[in-house]
Amino acid sequence: MSEKLNRLKEMLGEVSDLNNAVSVLGWDQQVNMPPAGGEARGQQLGTLGKIALEKFTTDEVGKLIDDLKQELNGSDSASDAAALIRVAARDYDKFKRVPPEFISERAVVSSKAFEAWRQARAKSDFSTFQPHLEKVLELVHQYISFFPPADHPYDTLLNDFEPGMKTADVKTIFDGLRPKQVELIKAIASQKQIKDDFLYKNYNEKKLMDFSENVITKFGYDWSRGRQDKAPHPFASSFSVNDVRITTRFEADSPLATLFSTLHESGHAMYEQGVDPDYERTPLAGGTSLAVHESQSRMWENLVGRSLPFWEHFYPALKKTFPRKLEVVSLKSFYKAINKVEPSLIRVNADEATYNLHIMLRLELEIAMVEGKLAIKDLPEIWNTKMQEYLGVTPPNDAKGVLQDIHWSGGMIGYFSTYALGNLISAQLWEKINQDIPDLDSQIRKGDFGQLLDWLRRNIHKYGKKYEPQTLVEKVTGSKITYEPYIRYLTKKFGEIYGL
Amino acid sequence: MSEKLNRLKEMLGEVSDLNNAVSVLGWDQQVNMPPAGGEARGQQLGTLGKIALEKFTTDEVGKLIDDLKQELNGSDSASDAAALIRVAARDYDKFKRVPPEFISERAVVSSKAFEAWRQARAKSDFSTFQPHLEKVLELVHQYISFFPPADHPYDTLLNDFEPGMKTADVKTIFDGLRPKQVELIKAIASQKQIKDDFLYKNYNEKKLMDFSENVITKFGYDWSRGRQDKAPHPFASSFSVNDVRITTRFEADSPLATLFSTLHESGHAMYEQGVDPDYERTPLAGGTSLAVHESQSRMWENLVGRSLPFWEHFYPALKKTFPRKLEVVSLKSFYKAINKVEPSLIRVNADEATYNLHIMLRLELEIAMVEGKLAIKDLPEIWNTKMQEYLGVTPPNDAKGVLQDIHWSGGMIGYFSTYALGNLISAQLWEKINQDIPDLDSQIRKGDFGQLLDWLRRNIHKYGKKYEPQTLVEKVTGSKITYEPYIRYLTKKFGEIYGL
Repeated sequence: MSEKLNRLKEMLGEVSDLNNAVSVLGWDQQVNMPPAGGEARGQQLGTLGKIALEKFTTDEVGKLIDDLKQELNGSDSASDAAALIRVAARDYDKFKRVPPEFISERAVVSSKAFEAWRQARAKSDFSTFQPHLEKVLELVHQYISFFPPADHPYDTLLNDFEPGMKTADVKTIFDGLRPKQVELIKAIASQKQIKDDFLYKNYNEKKLMDFSENVITKFGYDWSRGRQDKAPHPFASSFSVNDVRITTRFEADSPLATLFSTLHESGHAMYEQGVDPDYERTPLAGGTSLAVHESQSRMWENLVGRSLPFWEHFYPALKKTFPRKLEVVSLKSFYKAINKVEPSLIRVNADEATYNLHIMLRLELEIAMVEGKLAIKDLPEIWNTKMQEYLGVTPPNDAKGVLQDIHWSGGMIGYFSTYALGNLISAQLWEKINQDIPDLDSQIRKGDFGQLLDWLRRNIHKYGKKYEPQTLVEKVTGSKITYEPYIRYLTKKFGEIYGL
Repeated sequence: MSEKLNRLKEMLGEVSDLNNAVSVLGWDQQVNMPPAGGEARGQQLGTLGKIALEKFTTDEVGKLIDDLKQELNGSDSASDAAALIRVAARDYDKFKRVPPEFISERAVVSSKAFEAWRQARAKSDFSTFQPHLEKVLELVHQYISFFPPADHPYDTLLNDFEPGMKTADVKTIFDGLRPKQVELIKAIASQKQIKDDFLYKNYNEKKLMDFSENVITKFGYDWSRGRQDKAPHPFASSFSVNDVRITTRFEADSPLATLFSTLHESGHAMYEQGVDPDYERTPLAGGTSLAVHESQSRMWENLVGRSLPFWEHFYPALKKTFPRKLEVVSLKSFYKAINKVEPSLIRVNADEATYNLHIMLRLELEIAMVEGKLAIKDLPEIWNTKMQEYLGVTPPNDAKGVLQDIHWSGGMIGYFSTYALGNLISAQLWEKINQDIPDLDSQIRKGDFGQLLDWLRRNIHKYGKKYEPQTLVEKVTGSKITYEPYIRYLTKKFGEIYGL
């Protein structure tokens, strides 16, 4: 077996090198590339992507996977080798099913749809985007048709982002969560509004960046294996366990967002930095799913970064950095301000208590689209109705409603729910972590994140893609993904903040 | 023919994408990569390089080239298509002759030799580098053996950097130049020393960088298709005609070097930015040879950037930028200082009048090594003897002598002479340019470089690799590469400065 396994690893190592090179080129495109460089970069990315796919889907790779699966035959299924073969087989099957011509066509359609979406959003006019979204949806149906029938056609889409996750499971989780979350924000809405005007003053960009970098240094983000740059959108990107970079941006009208987005991206990056180095250049490298990834980013951003113990430690330093803005603001007032709950129109700006409702709305619409129960032309109206129902607000126009997110233009249907699942997983892990590290709060109060990161390293990060998300969560917490810890977390936190 | 040509272009387009991706990865490694990322980057570069080679040397590419050569059969040999096939055939032949195992072995030997060189230079002890250089030389002999016998074995090496150039030609040129250049610096040595202490004060890095960038903006470096970053060594790197970047560094003990190295790299970059966009993703993209490339960088750095008209325009602004350092320094004094001639030990710091002598010394040693007439162990002694003979100085140790340059550790034997040839070509072109643009000096005096760049674009840049260096120089100036314009340039310039 080891000879064939080595050969498979060698071949997939090259595929991995190509994919990592694609990531470097993509990172450079966002961070450094001069404006005119786009066309050539597109060609380079296209060629590398094509070769990576060709090299992954050769008959030899298929044969090796089959042989190794047979040789393994259930024995030692807990080994890394078995996991590697499982993940390779899953990906191989997927890529073999989807014809390269389809991938090319989808790239062309998405590219046009993206441009149409950009213009439609600028003019706040859904009708010009509508035919493009219809075409995207057609391709989504076609994509689903390449795969064997699942319990639900949406399963096939979800599976690309959350391996092993079923539509029915997500629905059950969300159906349990929704009424409780709606109830909570109704209760909050009846309380006194929190004052937060001091968050929106003219904060100095450089000082804020430096402060953010100091915080993530204390978290344990390893700068010898990473860096932070400015980019139009914050993201984390990994080219190796030893080269995991993050980006940030500065928005004058929401300066503190720079800090929280750095904490968020550092969570993604520390996950990638923590994967077992033995998985380098294998299909097991990297985080296991978008939701588990999001559980890490949201944990450092919210459960840590918007907690009272965290600010008990960092607020004096922040106050010292911005004395004129914060000298009259107490720790409690600051803590409340950064946790202010306010139903709003835009997902990416939503607070912890309302965020998931934005996601549930999207998931319902996506499922209805895939089931053919919703005509694309009716999307704006249904969007607005649901916004009123869940959040009590109605978008004044499509730009602030159905056109706000980029995902659908790129054909990324099935993606959104991972954001909400990430929130849930973060709270579920957090309960377990607090059982295992009973004095975690007081460690955080001292600015000591060593045990927390170590726990995540040992229980989540190091496994890379070895376990599917549900398996991993169950292995660690004793239960599959569930909404209860998250609602307990929200209820306690916002109950205290709003005196419910 | 057009169908086969299109197929060849398509295949070589992918090779070009891969090579450009390699360049992006290499640039990132120098400019951005966190320290720990090196191993993974090495693997990515190795895989991409290997695939580029495999894709270039397929039988199909070979057959297409052969077929197209036959179909062309001498007719229309001036066309771009004919040039493309010529260059593709030349490279194909070269890569087919060198076995991939040899390339791998050379990479390993070079990597070890580089590390040995680094340590040997640090300890200034040639003896620890000696066995590595011997091994490198063995591989150089082996490399030569893959090719048909040339007039001189060194021709094969030279040909990799200067296609079509013969050892005998370079020798003839250098033999004519050497006594004249030695004579000139002897004459200069007998004159009064130039005062230049004000160049070595504590100049502000940021201001110097900004000043440099303003200058190259006036030159015509296109920032929409480029950028400048800091790196350990200055270099230019091209990923497309629309993405050509440069780097610079700041050395506290030689601050003005930042300015001149930016001018130098902008010359390389403007060459690449000026290649016919129709050559994108073909073997004709990029500069035709190292010497022609160097002619562009040296022209902007020296013939323009160290000229009196240039400083008549820019000196007031420089003085305004650094008033305390330069207020008592006249234009003439500044001009003389930046052109001070001083025989010295280190090539990269050498002035215009002495630089070529450093190169000639290296060329003679390289030829002797390749001819087997020089034992590696004797290198330091012969180096020092020749330094005394040509420049009148003797290195106090090997670090400042035979160990100063990186090239030999990487197996780059045949490279050095391109630096001196670049100087010669720059002056040869300069005479022609001044015939074509008689008032060039007064244009430069006004900070107007438009006609100069336009001339270079039309006569040199746009042709990319279409013509071999000697052909191009002859086409433009009416004569093959010759040393006379350069010695005329040196004699006039330094005659005036030193009152000879």
